[in-house]
Amino acid sequence: MKILITGASGFVGRELSTKLIRKGHQVSALVRHPDPSLPVGLSRQHVVGEGLSPLIEAFRAETPDVVIHLAAVYAFEHAPEQLQTLLQANIVFGSLVLEAMRSVGCKRIVTAGTAWQNGEDGTFEPVNLYAATKQAFEAICTFYCVSEGMRAIHLHTCDTYGEDDHRRKLLELLEESTTSESPLSLSPGEQRISLVHIDDACDAFAVAAAQTLAMEEGEHRVRALLSDWFPTLRELVGMFNRADPTLPARVIWGGRAYRRREPMFPHSAPIRLEGHRNLVGLDEGLRRFRSRHASNSWQFKETA
Amino acid sequence: MKILITGASGFVGRELSTKLIRKGHQVSALVRHPDPSLPVGLSRQHVVGEGLSPLIEAFRAETPDVVIHLAAVYAFEHAPEQLQTLLQANIVFGSLVLEAMRSVGCKRIVTAGTAWQNGEDGTFEPVNLYAATKQAFEAICTFYCVSEGMRAIHLHTCDTYGEDDHRRKLLELLEESTTSESPLSLSPGEQRISLVHIDDACDAFAVAAAQTLAMEEGEHRVRALLSDWFPTLRELVGMFNRADPTLPARVIWGGRAYRRREPMFPHSAPIRLEGHRNLVGLDEGLRRFRSRHASNSWQFKETA
Repeated sequence: MKILITGASGFVGRELSTKLIRKGHQVSALVRHPDPSLPVGLSRQHVVGEGLSPLIEAFRAETPDVVIHLAAVYAFEHAPEQLQTLLQANIVFGSLVLEAMRSVGCKRIVTAGTAWQNGEDGTFEPVNLYAATKQAFEAICTFYCVSEGMRAIHLHTCDTYGEDDHRRKLLELLEESTTSESPLSLSPGEQRISLVHIDDACDAFAVAAAQTLAMEEGEHRVRALLSDWFPTLRELVGMFNRADPTLPARVIWGGRAYRRREPMFPHSAPIRLEGHRNLVGLDEGLRRFRSRHASNSWQFKETA
Repeated sequence: MKILITGASGFVGRELSTKLIRKGHQVSALVRHPDPSLPVGLSRQHVVGEGLSPLIEAFRAETPDVVIHLAAVYAFEHAPEQLQTLLQANIVFGSLVLEAMRSVGCKRIVTAGTAWQNGEDGTFEPVNLYAATKQAFEAICTFYCVSEGMRAIHLHTCDTYGEDDHRRKLLELLEESTTSESPLSLSPGEQRISLVHIDDACDAFAVAAAQTLAMEEGEHRVRALLSDWFPTLRELVGMFNRADPTLPARVIWGGRAYRRREPMFPHSAPIRLEGHRNLVGLDEGLRRFRSRHASNSWQFKETA
C-alpha cells in the first residue's frame, strides 16, 4: 500500500513508519518541521504549515491509498492558553487533511482517538479537552465519509510504551526513580491502567489501514485498542520491579493526589479492533523496556 | 436574567435580543464588529476578535446567568477555501466562549445547532460540513459540562423566517420573483420544509435559557426546534401565493436540480424542546411576511 502518516515524528508515528517500510509498504510522512531522524526508507517527508495548499500539494505528490492520522497535541488537563493549540492541532489540522484528501480523491483514513473519549456505558463522556477534540474531529470526519464516500476507522487507543520510548511518562519516571535520590511521588495507585506495547499498537494501525480497503463507501467505524487486562497502577509497579529486581522503583504511594478527573478505568470504545491481537504481554514488554534502559545507562556510563 | 448573546447581529440574535429586553431581562451582546443597529436596550455590546483575553474581559464585565450562543458562519456546501472560516467560527470561537465562561464561573449555555445534524434514525449524520461543525462544537461543550459542571441545551433548529427577515433566502427570493422579469428557478420541489416563525424561535431560545437554571450540574441536552408540519416546497409556494393572491411568485419547477445532499426531510434531534409551543402557523406567518414586504415596497416607492 501507499501509506501517508501524519505525526510521523511522534513515538507511535516513528515506530509505525519503520515497521510499515519493513513490510514493504511505500510510506510518506507529513511533519511540522524537517525531521532528519525519521526512518531512511521513507519515500518522502512533507513539511506542512497550517494552510490547505501545501497539504493538497503533498497529497497530489503521494496519492496515498490510506492515511494514518496520528498528529496531535496532548494535555491531560489543559491550561486556558493551550485551548487554541489543541483545537488547531487536533481538529483544524485534521480537517485540512480531510479536505486535501477530498481534493485528490484519497478516500481511506485511520485516525488515532483515545480510550478517554467514552464513559462506562460506552457513550461519549470525555475525560478531558484532549478527548473532546478527538471526538470533535471524528464528527468532521463523519461528514467527509457520508458526503464524499470516504472510509474511516477511528482507533481509540490506550497508552503505549516500548523499549525505545523516552517520553518522560510513567515507565521512564519509574526507571529514573531507581537511581534517583528522591523517590517518585505517585497517587494512591488504585486506578486501572491499559498499556499496549508499541509493536502491538503498530500492528493494530496496520491492520486497521488494511481493513479500510475492504470497507464500503461512507463507512466509518469506531474501534478500541486496549491491553488484554488492566492492572492497577500498584500492580503495574510490582510488575515493573519483578522485571528487574536488582533495581526496584522507589515510590511514595499517595505522595500526590489523584489528578482531577483521573480515569480509574480505561473504558474506551465498546468494540475492539477486529483482526488484531496483542502479542507482547506486559511481563515481556516490561522486561524488554527495563533491559534496554539498563543497557542505555551502561552505554551512558561508558561514554561519560 | 442576565443573558449574554453571541451573534447578536444576525437575524435571530437581533430579534431575540429585542424580545428579551422587552421581557425585562438584562441583555448584553458579543459581536465581531460594532453594530449601531443593535437594540437600544442592550446593556452593552462587546466587540471581540479571535483571542481569549477580550472574551474573558467581556464575561468578567457581564457575569451572565446564561449565554445564548448563536454566532456562526453558514455554507450549505462549503468550498475548500471556506473550511477554516467555518471551523474557526463554529468550533474555535464557541470553545473560546466556553473557556471564558469557565474562567468567570458562568455555567449555563444554550447553543443553536441545526436540524441537519441528525439522520433518519436520530443519530448523527450531517447533511453538510456546517452541521458537522455544530456537532463538533457540542463535543467540546460536553467536556465543559462533565468537567466544569456547566449545563447546556443544544437546540437543533430548522430554518426561521419573519417579516423583518431580509436575508435573501427562499421567501425573499419568492417575493422578488413576483415583480421580477425572470421567474425563479427552483428544484422539483418535493423536499419537505420546516420553517419556524422568528417569534416562535425566540420563544424557544428564551424557554431553553430559563430551563438551564433548573438543570443539574453537568447536564447537557439535545433538543429539536421544528415547525409542527412539514409542507413540501411546492406546497409552501402554494401557501405563499394564497397569502397574497394578487402577487403570485413566478417559479419554474425543476428549473434547477436538487442541491447535492439536499435534505428531503427535516429529521433533527429525536426530542422536541419541552415547554415550548409554536404559536405562529405558517399561514399566518406568511401573511405577515407578505403584507410587511408589500408595505416595504410601498415605502420604497414613496421614497424613491
